[in-house]
Amino acid sequence: MSAPGLSAATDDVRLPTGDSNVSFVLHGIDDVRYEDRPVPTESSDNDAIVAPKKVTLCGSDVHYYKEGRVGDFIVEKPMVLGHETAALVVKVGRNVTNIKPGDRVALEPGESCRMCPDCKAGHYQRCPKMKFAATPPFDGTLAHYYTLPADLCYKLPDNMTLEEGALLEPMSVGVHAVHKIGQMKLAANVVVFGAGPVGLLTAAVAKGLGARKVVIVDIQEPRLQFAKENNLVHDYYLPSKPNEGEAREDYPRRNAKEIRERFEFEERGPNAVDLIVDCSGAEVCIQTAIYLLGHGGTMVQVGHGKPNITLDYQTVVTHELTIKGSFRYGPGAYRLSMDLVARGAVNLKALISHRYTFRDAVKAFEANHKGVGQDGKPLIKAVIDGPEADEKL
Amino acid sequence: MSAPGLSAATDDVRLPTGDSNVSFVLHGIDDVRYEDRPVPTESSDNDAIVAPKKVTLCGSDVHYYKEGRVGDFIVEKPMVLGHETAALVVKVGRNVTNIKPGDRVALEPGESCRMCPDCKAGHYQRCPKMKFAATPPFDGTLAHYYTLPADLCYKLPDNMTLEEGALLEPMSVGVHAVHKIGQMKLAANVVVFGAGPVGLLTAAVAKGLGARKVVIVDIQEPRLQFAKENNLVHDYYLPSKPNEGEAREDYPRRNAKEIRERFEFEERGPNAVDLIVDCSGAEVCIQTAIYLLGHGGTMVQVGHGKPNITLDYQTVVTHELTIKGSFRYGPGAYRLSMDLVARGAVNLKALISHRYTFRDAVKAFEANHKGVGQDGKPLIKAVIDGPEADEKL
Amino acid sequence: MSAPGLSAATDDVRLPTGDSNVSFVLHGIDDVRYEDRPVPTESSDNDAIVAPKKVTLCGSDVHYYKEGRVGDFIVEKPMVLGHETAALVVKVGRNVTNIKPGDRVALEPGESCRMCPDCKAGHYQRCPKMKFAATPPFDGTLAHYYTLPADLCYKLPDNMTLEEGALLEPMSVGVHAVHKIGQMKLAANVVVFGAGPVGLLTAAVAKGLGARKVVIVDIQEPRLQFAKENNLVHDYYLPSKPNEGEAREDYPRRNAKEIRERFEFEERGPNAVDLIVDCSGAEVCIQTAIYLLGHGGTMVQVGHGKPNITLDYQTVVTHELTIKGSFRYGPGAYRLSMDLVARGAVNLKALISHRYTFRDAVKAFEANHKGVGQDGKPLIKAVIDGPEADEKL
Amino acid sequence: MSAPGLSAATDDVRLPTGDSNVSFVLHGIDDVRYEDRPVPTESSDNDAIVAPKKVTLCGSDVHYYKEGRVGDFIVEKPMVLGHETAALVVKVGRNVTNIKPGDRVALEPGESCRMCPDCKAGHYQRCPKMKFAATPPFDGTLAHYYTLPADLCYKLPDNMTLEEGALLEPMSVGVHAVHKIGQMKLAANVVVFGAGPVGLLTAAVAKGLGARKVVIVDIQEPRLQFAKENNLVHDYYLPSKPNEGEAREDYPRRNAKEIRERFEFEERGPNAVDLIVDCSGAEVCIQTAIYLLGHGGTMVQVGHGKPNITLDYQTVVTHELTIKGSFRYGPGAYRLSMDLVARGAVNLKALISHRYTFRDAVKAFEANHKGVGQDGKPLIKAVIDGPEADEKL
Repeated sequence: MSAPGLSAATDDVRLPTGDSNVSFVLHGIDDVRYEDRPVPTESSDNDAIVAPKKVTLCGSDVHYYKEGRVGDFIVEKPMVLGHETAALVVKVGRNVTNIKPGDRVALEPGESCRMCPDCKAGHYQRCPKMKFAATPPFDGTLAHYYTLPADLCYKLPDNMTLEEGALLEPMSVGVHAVHKIGQMKLAANVVVFGAGPVGLLTAAVAKGLGARKVVIVDIQEPRLQFAKENNLVHDYYLPSKPNEGEAREDYPRRNAKEIRERFEFEERGPNAVDLIVDCSGAEVCIQTAIYLLGHGGTMVQVGHGKPNITLDYQTVVTHELTIKGSFRYGPGAYRLSMDLVARGAVNLKALISHRYTFRDAVKAFEANHKGVGQDGKPLIKAVIDGPEADEKL
Repeated sequence: MSAPGLSAATDDVRLPTGDSNVSFVLHGIDDVRYEDRPVPTESSDNDAIVAPKKVTLCGSDVHYYKEGRVGDFIVEKPMVLGHETAALVVKVGRNVTNIKPGDRVALEPGESCRMCPDCKAGHYQRCPKMKFAATPPFDGTLAHYYTLPADLCYKLPDNMTLEEGALLEPMSVGVHAVHKIGQMKLAANVVVFGAGPVGLLTAAVAKGLGARKVVIVDIQEPRLQFAKENNLVHDYYLPSKPNEGEAREDYPRRNAKEIRERFEFEERGPNAVDLIVDCSGAEVCIQTAIYLLGHGGTMVQVGHGKPNITLDYQTVVTHELTIKGSFRYGPGAYRLSMDLVARGAVNLKALISHRYTFRDAVKAFEANHKGVGQDGKPLIKAVIDGPEADEKL
Repeated sequence: MSAPGLSAATDDVRLPTGDSNVSFVLHGIDDVRYEDRPVPTESSDNDAIVAPKKVTLCGSDVHYYKEGRVGDFIVEKPMVLGHETAALVVKVGRNVTNIKPGDRVALEPGESCRMCPDCKAGHYQRCPKMKFAATPPFDGTLAHYYTLPADLCYKLPDNMTLEEGALLEPMSVGVHAVHKIGQMKLAANVVVFGAGPVGLLTAAVAKGLGARKVVIVDIQEPRLQFAKENNLVHDYYLPSKPNEGEAREDYPRRNAKEIRERFEFEERGPNAVDLIVDCSGAEVCIQTAIYLLGHGGTMVQVGHGKPNITLDYQTVVTHELTIKGSFRYGPGAYRLSMDLVARGAVNLKALISHRYTFRDAVKAFEANHKGVGQDGKPLIKAVIDGPEADEKL
Repeated sequence: MSAPGLSAATDDVRLPTGDSNVSFVLHGIDDVRYEDRPVPTESSDNDAIVAPKKVTLCGSDVHYYKEGRVGDFIVEKPMVLGHETAALVVKVGRNVTNIKPGDRVALEPGESCRMCPDCKAGHYQRCPKMKFAATPPFDGTLAHYYTLPADLCYKLPDNMTLEEGALLEPMSVGVHAVHKIGQMKLAANVVVFGAGPVGLLTAAVAKGLGARKVVIVDIQEPRLQFAKENNLVHDYYLPSKPNEGEAREDYPRRNAKEIRERFEFEERGPNAVDLIVDCSGAEVCIQTAIYLLGHGGTMVQVGHGKPNITLDYQTVVTHELTIKGSFRYGPGAYRLSMDLVARGAVNLKALISHRYTFRDAVKAFEANHKGVGQDGKPLIKAVIDGPEADEKL
């Protein structure tokens, strides 16, 4: 497993020595520092202390690093970065039975209160008291140690790598959007807008769950080709530029018509596109989705919601469309993600394009910000190793 | 039953004599004429010939009269107006068992193809071959005779008037929005925007179906008071004007906060407003709805969809909202409407504010267009009698 | 509030003095004793210590007292009885914000693990680690003090009595069956078999949630009359005895036909009875339900499931029926129960037929076992006061 | 395509000559005759006249032949047999646009009234006026000509054979059970009881729709091996006989435990088996299903319902199970079946084990009755050719 990216990937997955807790801490815009935080020693009864070993980067991590905020979440005190994580279990509380020290685990990084109506009704992603790793003011996982409830640790099957384990986090965003919010029908025709990591994973999830046909749409052709070559989708669509003199409202209609041709219509009638998931946040994509959906179809917006999107509500009404927002992921998403990977229904391996050591973490953030690695190749997903076992300040 | 409106209401509900078929026909903008169309004599096996006796007016009728079109539907040849109708049965085909000559019936004015996937799957309102009364090019019901499939005739219970029967049409729009599209939960908290006839009926349907609390919102206080006084809603909200210097995006947020105070929050947690139905079509209402809904709540848009509505998609995502379009009504809506009225759960009587004879039909259209009757009182719903039994050109 | 039953009801709802914790403890069949258990002093961060003041009796309490077991749950060590409870709050942990000392609260008596897949998915009633009050080996509430997580304490509105608060427990069984499991449709036609406390409450819940018509069935006419007189149902049905020579399979068919006549059919078509909830556990009722349901209808079995019930599966298939089991109650049931009572949609007051002091608790168990109070009147629901404030051994 | 069975399969798929309508008619038990029925000449506007070319046999066909009845359906006058059919289109009515003469089509053999509440609500399988081919008193398809509404003719894609087209009928039974009634979740664990044609097809449908794992259960090992070898399932289970002295209620519990081991449990928690479809009608299978389902799981009974099945209702309650009946198939089933075959998700080819000419039809019925062809091999599915183009009496 040689690294295609910037630096050599370390395969050091030994437990840390316990005499330091080197952490990668954001202090302000473009200001990250290594600090030695206290080593946790005792966990409460239901908790686990784990040692993060692979942390993949998310757009939000880079936003905090470059802008100090994501929407209403503002970094007001130093915060450890990183939240897409696979780790080794170091220690578990006395009630814990699902994992034991030494186990390789994926970490679900959000701890909800378990007591509010949303938590109890099965929607913990909406918990107003959610503590989410690397979302201010809560520390993330780029450190020797991280402590969390043991039920948020998912023991990896033997056929899964730690890198795949880290990717269960963004994959679960796709599972939630497709399965829980989008309630994808069996044999659905699906379109995903946006071929960034979440879009790619969402498309791959829809395909892995048995969608009839999944088409991904993006303006970057290499990402579309990547999706097709790695079997994450059935087909793709690259929008052409607006035609000269084309009316503003005609452009999304034309794209919708062209995407629709990717599906075979005559056998299915007017409900051809059942589900659209927008992972782009681009207004023109959302507008296109409204014209693309079949009667009674559903569009799910994943993340990246914006304060002002202009829609054709007339079509929403006459076609009886449904539009839904999808936020993070809820109960069962991690298990389903892991199961899809473990049984080969989704192949995560290709998504890691660049690998970095813990000491090179800032290079990973910079490359992710630019969208290309130092090798000049497009960056799909960057992974940063956790600290080496004996790493100190 | 004296007429509160313009002219004396006739209580002539005898069957027509059969020697003429005087019809109220739209020829162009502001151009309506009485014509003697052929008298239908034979119906096919599953059809009924009926004699319309009460026709209530809808905004779309007035639009065709004043503008010659509604959206993409354009009047290109003379068309009989009227589609909210109660009638007497004149004759039935040989397979018909649900009604017999002389029965008082409400008419469902849309005949779907019964063979396309949408029809067969239980969504006939989406049928691309729908023939809808007084929607070009299909004639409406303001005539001595109208022919339709007998299964679209609903025999009125003895305790229902013909006027109530005519109002089952707009009421079914509300039933579809609340019950089928909105999937109103038991004990739901509901807000309806718009206190026109469809808004009033939608609110009354939600209340009649057992909603915990229904609040109606409109900028015309008399309509709100009408709703409350006639027990169609539990409460209402009259928005104040935007404050001087108030940011454009703050106004809907402030209204949302104030409407929210109409509900008792502490006992219910964050899901306070479960369902919002917009019957106003006003952008500011739709924007307010997004801020007003509880986590996971649903907003239904009824009719009046516009080509450009600007929404806060960020809130749609973080609160995991659902937005749905509702178009006309589908299977079961008429039956449920009729049942709600028959057992006293919805009181339609107050809605008829003005009554007109067939010969005064144009006055009804003009009054509806202005929103006030010639008595100077606000027009809620105008009813036009069908032709008198012996009415001729 | 004079007591209609055996002894004078005490209205002592003062907090206990704290120098004893007298408890009503089951040691074996017919063997109950008062014991002074340790007074709890410190609660953990999310817990509350409460003083039970009203405990209504449930069939399961009496089963443990008379048989030492309910199904697979066997009393193997001394256990405090009682689980339908309203209490005063004595002390709360430092994280608790929903209640404060002195508050009047209803207690939800089951503490789930909050970490298993069922708990997280919103089905905590299925939690395999559930700790349920007065279900072996967990102590119940007939004592000076009881400790539980504060989110299971529901502050009573001012217009609700403590007795009503205690009855939220069996009422929530009905809410779960009707709302969550039965997914009662708006305007549903409902039949409830069994007019014991759970049947009465289930019927009242269905009615309070807006069912079109609720009919209750039982072989004890006074219970049916009680239901009707107290407005808990719309109508009732008293089955006649099997006719002489009537074939075994004809009896449930005949009863189904007769119950069906309680609903008005011609206006509704073949789906007349939408939902049946069986609270009787009697095989003949379940068999009748199968014949009574309309096409596509749902039958819910509440509690009292038996190891051997013989059903007509042919009818289940040809009518495409649904049969579901309902166990206790899950998220939201208590809140909805409380809300229905608080806003007058369900009237619990009539259900308390007999009242007992804490010192007379055993009399309450005996009367409940017999089904009649010492006044000779049928016992609907017995309530036992908590210990008086200064009660000691 | 040589015939593995009794006689040479004819590949005659030419249109009949039009001078005769030889039909295979059931007159009574074991009494079938060839008759020349009138040649249909005119079809009504929405109908098609077709020439059946491949008719596969169903258990019900054989029941009528051998017993003169199926349940309440009794053959009282001569009736053409056969209802699983692919055909050539001969002539279409003037409104028909979905097919044209010469097209190869699969026939959906049930014509519903399209006007009753069940038809309009999307449940036409429950239509009380259903006219179903070869269900008394309606003629079936083993004849030169058959007339039906054109929307019940599904044009076969070029990559599908007529034999596959005939098999869409029993396959649609599986689609309805899995998709519409069972509402199979994405990534579901599924068990199918019974490896007759409907069981095999139901299992293949579940697998083709993306089930995580499908296990089929039957007491005939060759059928299980057939299912596995032809990739219709992931795995199978052959029940052992009851152990000597094994209690009657222990046998289904033991089988449930052993089937459960076919699934990997530790990763999925207690909801391991999500959906069970019983296509056996055997009481012991239904009893086993109750113990096999995970909490909240669903069991669907397909056809073969019996008047007396004894169930463990206690487990239904405590595990909150759902039991549903599935009858024939409704809207969308045929399209989905065809789509699954056309895109290779379900392979029907292996199911045709024996082929017969029209003149040998009675041999097909006899072989189907015995369960083995004259070649001594187990009969999975027998197909009978339609009459040859110039076939006469």
